[in-house]
Amino acid sequence: MSLSITQSLEPAVTADEFKAAFRNHPGGVAVITADAGNGPVGLTATSVISASAEPPILAFSVSEFSSSTPTILAADTVVVHLLGADQVDIAKLCATSGIDRFADTSLWSRLESGEPYFVQAQTWIRGRIINSMAAGGSTIVAVEALQASPALSSEAAPADPLVYHNRTWHVLGDASQI
Amino acid sequence: MSLSITQSLEPAVTADEFKAAFRNHPGGVAVITADAGNGPVGLTATSVISASAEPPILAFSVSEFSSSTPTILAADTVVVHLLGADQVDIAKLCATSGIDRFADTSLWSRLESGEPYFVQAQTWIRGRIINSMAAGGSTIVAVEALQASPALSSEAAPADPLVYHNRTWHVLGDASQI
Repeated sequence: MSLSITQSLEPAVTADEFKAAFRNHPGGVAVITADAGNGPVGLTATSVISASAEPPILAFSVSEFSSSTPTILAADTVVVHLLGADQVDIAKLCATSGIDRFADTSLWSRLESGEPYFVQAQTWIRGRIINSMAAGGSTIVAVEALQASPALSSEAAPADPLVYHNRTWHVLGDASQI
Repeated sequence: MSLSITQSLEPAVTADEFKAAFRNHPGGVAVITADAGNGPVGLTATSVISASAEPPILAFSVSEFSSSTPTILAADTVVVHLLGADQVDIAKLCATSGIDRFADTSLWSRLESGEPYFVQAQTWIRGRIINSMAAGGSTIVAVEALQASPALSSEAAPADPLVYHNRTWHVLGDASQI
């Protein structure tokens, strides 16, 4: 009797099955930075999505297991960097635990409004957190874009984007096109 | 005076700039299906993200401009298909406006629980909508996974995934690896 009760409480989809499904679901790579007054934090995320162009709103998910999450949720504003393949070093830096991700002061600076950002990133969007909701062990955050990197309004073609898939970094370009 | 008021109300990031930024931010391709009692709907989305593995929760964004959105938001449960490159035809079908996406009855069936799903998709997750929030012209939906496609618990290697980037379909594989 207790066995059948235990079984009915188990999720029908295990964490391993769920992870296996999403390991094969690729995502563009972003780094999110913020400073809520206690110093800069940055984390690498493949969960950044465009939700609405007018008004311009993006969203991403932050896990309770990430050391950067409390600062991101406490900050009014964040910077979301959308990375090209030549910025894979920033993605790796902000995906590595137990290091000071801001130790190399040549990599980052602050915007006039104060937020830390990685200067190499060709595309970044500064925005204000306008909404959030719980999703299991994570919080999904909606961010209204306030400012975009100058390169966005230039005519220059952006670099090939960085993609994460099955624990490996990929680049999209002519070779990957169907 | 009225001019300066108008300017201060304008977003600092235009819709065109925002779209340009995300055109270069790739996403894995998914198709979401549902039936709230008025027949099946399906839409192609690059906004499906994993939010939490334990409990297993995913999220996605649906636009007020999509004809499928009212049905998805009214449905208790949805099916999220994570597509491989050999399922690009399903992605194109559910991204095409003004057609009956379920006209070809050889492409889809219903799960025992009633939801419509595309039988070719190697990976799908059936789930229950547990939370949602407004994000400009879209709604971001959180879905708890209830059931996964049988292939997920097999040992077979999944097909190379489909990615959408800069209005083009891509496939990830050895050639795209950094």
